[in-house]
Amino acid sequence: MGHYATRVNGMAIAVCRFVHTRIERLHRRAAEIPGLIPLAGGLPADELLPRNEIADALRAVQSSPTALQYGWPEGSEPLRHWIAKRLHARGASSVTADDVVVTAGAQQAIALAAAELVDPGRSVYVGVTSYPAAISALSLRGGVPSASRAAACAHYAMAGVSNPSGRDLLGRERDALLASGAPIVVDEAYAELRFDDRSERPLLVGAEDRVWHVGTVSKTLCPGLRVGWLVPPAGFRERVLERKHAADLQAGSLGQAALAHFLDRFDYDAHVRRVRGIYRQRAETLVQALERHAPGFRFEHPEGGFSVWVETDQRCDDVALLACALRRGVSLDPGRLFRPDGARNPLSFRLCFSYAPRDALEEGVRRVVAAVRDAERKYAA
Amino acid sequence: MGHYATRVNGMAIAVCRFVHTRIERLHRRAAEIPGLIPLAGGLPADELLPRNEIADALRAVQSSPTALQYGWPEGSEPLRHWIAKRLHARGASSVTADDVVVTAGAQQAIALAAAELVDPGRSVYVGVTSYPAAISALSLRGGVPSASRAAACAHYAMAGVSNPSGRDLLGRERDALLASGAPIVVDEAYAELRFDDRSERPLLVGAEDRVWHVGTVSKTLCPGLRVGWLVPPAGFRERVLERKHAADLQAGSLGQAALAHFLDRFDYDAHVRRVRGIYRQRAETLVQALERHAPGFRFEHPEGGFSVWVETDQRCDDVALLACALRRGVSLDPGRLFRPDGARNPLSFRLCFSYAPRDALEEGVRRVVAAVRDAERKYAA
Repeated sequence: MGHYATRVNGMAIAVCRFVHTRIERLHRRAAEIPGLIPLAGGLPADELLPRNEIADALRAVQSSPTALQYGWPEGSEPLRHWIAKRLHARGASSVTADDVVVTAGAQQAIALAAAELVDPGRSVYVGVTSYPAAISALSLRGGVPSASRAAACAHYAMAGVSNPSGRDLLGRERDALLASGAPIVVDEAYAELRFDDRSERPLLVGAEDRVWHVGTVSKTLCPGLRVGWLVPPAGFRERVLERKHAADLQAGSLGQAALAHFLDRFDYDAHVRRVRGIYRQRAETLVQALERHAPGFRFEHPEGGFSVWVETDQRCDDVALLACALRRGVSLDPGRLFRPDGARNPLSFRLCFSYAPRDALEEGVRRVVAAVRDAERKYAA
Repeated sequence: MGHYATRVNGMAIAVCRFVHTRIERLHRRAAEIPGLIPLAGGLPADELLPRNEIADALRAVQSSPTALQYGWPEGSEPLRHWIAKRLHARGASSVTADDVVVTAGAQQAIALAAAELVDPGRSVYVGVTSYPAAISALSLRGGVPSASRAAACAHYAMAGVSNPSGRDLLGRERDALLASGAPIVVDEAYAELRFDDRSERPLLVGAEDRVWHVGTVSKTLCPGLRVGWLVPPAGFRERVLERKHAADLQAGSLGQAALAHFLDRFDYDAHVRRVRGIYRQRAETLVQALERHAPGFRFEHPEGGFSVWVETDQRCDDVALLACALRRGVSLDPGRLFRPDGARNPLSFRLCFSYAPRDALEEGVRRVVAAVRDAERKYAA
C-alpha cells in the first residue's frame, strides 16, 4: 500500500512539476516586463534590506580566516547563542546553543526535518493552504501532503503568521496540533512580522520531544546570507548533524560570521519593529484596494507577514490567470501552488504586498481585477 | 532483499555514527590543543585564501540588492557562464550555462546526485578508499558504498586527484568506469590542484547522458563562500532544480555575487597556479619526512591535492591512534573514515599537508610515528 501510494504520489509530483515549470517560466518572464507591479514571490522589500549595516559587518569579518574557511556542521557558536537566548526570552528555557543547528535558510531546516520524519507513502498534514517549498520538500521525501490531520505521520505548520494567508493559523489550532501526538515542524519564518508586535511562546515549550523548531532572518533582515536554523528534538540532534554534513557540510561561514557580527553591533529588534511597521502599512493599502476594487474576492485581513490569500467562487485556470496578469502588468502566485493536492479550483491566488512600493499597490490590485476578468472570458470561450 | 540490505546498512550506519562521533569529538578537542600540528581535515591553508581580493569583491557587490535578495535555484548566470566556459575550453563543447546548477559547495552537488541515483539497498561503487562525506551522502540515501563495481547502481569517483590518496585514480580506471554503463558522479573538487598542471578532458565528454559533473572553488579559492556546481545529464536538469529548491531554495546570493565579481576581475588561473606550487612543495616536504622517519609506512607520492594516504601492516585501533596523536601534538584522519565498509584494519590514516606550515610538517611526521608506536603498545597491552 505504501508502495502504491508512493507511486501515485510520484505521478502527482510529475504532473505538478510540469505545471510548476510553466508557472516558473511565467514568473521568469515577469522579471523582464518593464513597469510590472510585482505582487508575487514573497520577497522582502529591496529598500528595507539593511545594506549599510551588512556592509559594515562584512568589512569587519571578511579578512578573518573563520569567515572564509570550513566550519563545524552545527554552525557559528555566537549565532547559536543568540538564537537560544531569544527562544529563552520567549519562555523556551530548556533550549541552549547546543540544541541549535544553523542551516541554509529555513528551507533547509524544513528539508532536514522532512528527511527524518516522513514515512514514504503516508500523509503529512500541512493545512488547507501552505508554503509551496515545504509541500515540495515533504513530497520529495515520499510524503503525501494533506489538509487532514488524520493518520498523518507528521505535521507542518507556520507559527505566528502563515504563508500564504498572513493569518495566525497555528495559534488557532495549537491545542489540536499538540493533542495529535505526532511530530510537528513549526516554521517561524514570518513569526517576528506579526503586525500586533505579539510574540508567542514557542510551540516547543512542553513538547520538546516532538517539535522541530524552524527559524530564519531571511524575511526580517536579508535572504542573501542564507541563514536559518533548526532546533530538533534532543534525540535527533546527532542524526540531523549527520544529515546536515552530508547535505552541504555546513552553512556558509561568511554569511554566518557577518550575521553574528551584525547581531552583536546593531539593534535587530529596532530593525524588525521598523520593517514590521512598513509592511503593516503596505498590508493596509493592499486590503483597502481589494475592498474598493474587488468586492467579489474573498480574503482575510493579514495579521502579519508578506501576503494576502484571495479566494473566489470562479472556476478558471489559475496559470492562465497568471499569464493574463502579466499582460496587464502585474504578477501574482497561482493558488494551486499552496494547496496540498495542487487543486486549481476554486480560483485562488496569493498577493504579496511586501516587495512592490506602497504607492503601486492600488494600481496592482486594479490590474489583478482586470486580469481575472480576462481569464474568466478566456475560460468561458 | 533490498529491504534487508537497507536494514543491515542502517545498522552499519548506526555503528559508524557512534565511532564518527568519537572521531569528531577528538578532532574538536584537537582545535584546542596549543602547538598542535594539524595534519587532519582537508582544509586549504589560511594564508592562501585570497582575502584582499574577496574583500574587494564583497565591497563591490554588497550593496546591490541581487547580492542580498533571493535568486533562482540554478544560481548566478555570470557564474554559470564562467563554469561552462571552462568546461568548454577543456573539450566539453556541449556544455552551456543552462546546464549548470550552482550548489552549496561540491558536497551539495554530490547529495543532489545521490538523491536521484541511489537505489536503496543497492551498492554504489566508491573505490577502495573515498571521500567520507560522499560515502555518508550515499549511505543516507540508502545506498551501500562498495569497493566493487559489480552490480553497482551508480559510481562515485574523483577526477584528476582523489581524496584521500592524492592520486589520479580515475585516470587509471576511466575506461572501466565508462564501460560499466552505470551513471557516474565525477567529483572534480581537487582536479585543478594536480601538481603536473595537467587538465584532463572532463569525463562527461561523450558520456553526457550519465556523467554527473561536480566542481567547486572551495579547495582552490575559499570554502567560506559555499559555492560549488553540478552539471547533471540534461534529462535530469528539471528534477535536480526541483530538489535543489526543496533543499535550500538556492545557493547564497552574496557568496555567488562576490565570486562572480572576483572571477571577472582577478586572475583565477594565476591564483590556482600559485597555490598549486605551494601545495606541491608541502607535499614534497611531507613525503621526504615520511621517507626519512617512517620507513614502515606505505604510501604513494601524491599527484596533487591536499593529502597522502598511509597504510601499514599493523592491526590497531585507528581511533585510539588519533587519541595518541593528539597527546603527541599532531592530528590525522583515521583510515576507517575513507573505507566504504568502515574497516579499521589494517591500520591506515590520511595525512594532510595543505593546512600546516611547511616547516612544521617534518616535526608533524615525527609525532605521527611516535603516536603509532604508542597506539601499538596500547593495542598489544
